[in-house]
Amino acid sequence: MNREQALAIVKLQLTDHRYQHTLGVVDTAIELAKRFGADEEKAEIAAIFHDYAKFRDKEEMKRIVQEKLTEKSFLDYGDELLHAPCGAYLVQHEVGIDDQELLNAIYYHTTGRPEMTVLEKVVFLADYIEPGRQFKGVEEVRVLAQTNLDDAILQTLENTIFFLMKRRQRVFPDTLATFNQLVKQKKEK
Amino acid sequence: MNREQALAIVKLQLTDHRYQHTLGVVDTAIELAKRFGADEEKAEIAAIFHDYAKFRDKEEMKRIVQEKLTEKSFLDYGDELLHAPCGAYLVQHEVGIDDQELLNAIYYHTTGRPEMTVLEKVVFLADYIEPGRQFKGVEEVRVLAQTNLDDAILQTLENTIFFLMKRRQRVFPDTLATFNQLVKQKKEK
Repeated sequence: MNREQALAIVKLQLTDHRYQHTLGVVDTAIELAKRFGADEEKAEIAAIFHDYAKFRDKEEMKRIVQEKLTEKSFLDYGDELLHAPCGAYLVQHEVGIDDQELLNAIYYHTTGRPEMTVLEKVVFLADYIEPGRQFKGVEEVRVLAQTNLDDAILQTLENTIFFLMKRRQRVFPDTLATFNQLVKQKKEK
Repeated sequence: MNREQALAIVKLQLTDHRYQHTLGVVDTAIELAKRFGADEEKAEIAAIFHDYAKFRDKEEMKRIVQEKLTEKSFLDYGDELLHAPCGAYLVQHEVGIDDQELLNAIYYHTTGRPEMTVLEKVVFLADYIEPGRQFKGVEEVRVLAQTNLDDAILQTLENTIFFLMKRRQRVFPDTLATFNQLVKQKKEK
């Protein structure tokens, strides 16, 4: 599937605002893939589809998690997490993309996971720093992303966990586990 | 065991500075126990012994975790955590205290755990806010502790997790799980 076909498919699933965000994630993901050695085409397609399920009905997504996915724990941590794993499922079953590496980059783009691949890291980070993002702390991550993928991911995880905790929202355990794994890896280097 | 006997035993295990901290924790724990309805005598004795293992040899503590405790995961998150579960073990086997509720308040005083008892919360919180503590954020927790035990614990967990993450130190998963459980419980009220 080429870029134009993919964009045409995803455009129908998103609001204009979210489509603009997606275009930002695509450009950023390609740039990061070049910089840190991920497959650029996979990064591009994964970025295009990363929010494919963003506006799906919440009950439909809960059903998909219940009936189709192995990990059910997403259901315990707020609806905002559902679109990532459900997106991977729907991109496979509705769009027909079967590349597991690419699907995983969609699946983990919101929560992260320990031992993320470079492709997963690239999409996770691109989603956070694409030019349309304007929240507190994003500029610091953009600077880190110029040179060090893991440091940029660590700062993203710190920012995200702080953001949730300050608002007294639950934090998905694997998001902290991603942080712990990267800290451990840095110490062992 | 009365207060004087307990203090005499623990004094031999601690530096002067740590003994003064312990006295602060004891007073605070009694006050919190009164305020929030925990057993005051158990709070007093648990507070006296909460840092019993603070200056034990690290290798001895690792051996205790390996050979005597069910939960081994403390070993993966830095030596600072060891003194709490090892303290509970040593207070039982060297001092001869067998009250499991009291021992649990020692065991979980650093990490917390989901579904903490009021006694566990009282010792956990007293350790954080006793008058000798002077770090950023402690005053806010002291104010919360005047009226709401769980809100004070939530703020303590937020502060502690931020402190560790900013310093790129790993966070014990059950500490986040404690936060998640309390947030969930608050929402369900």
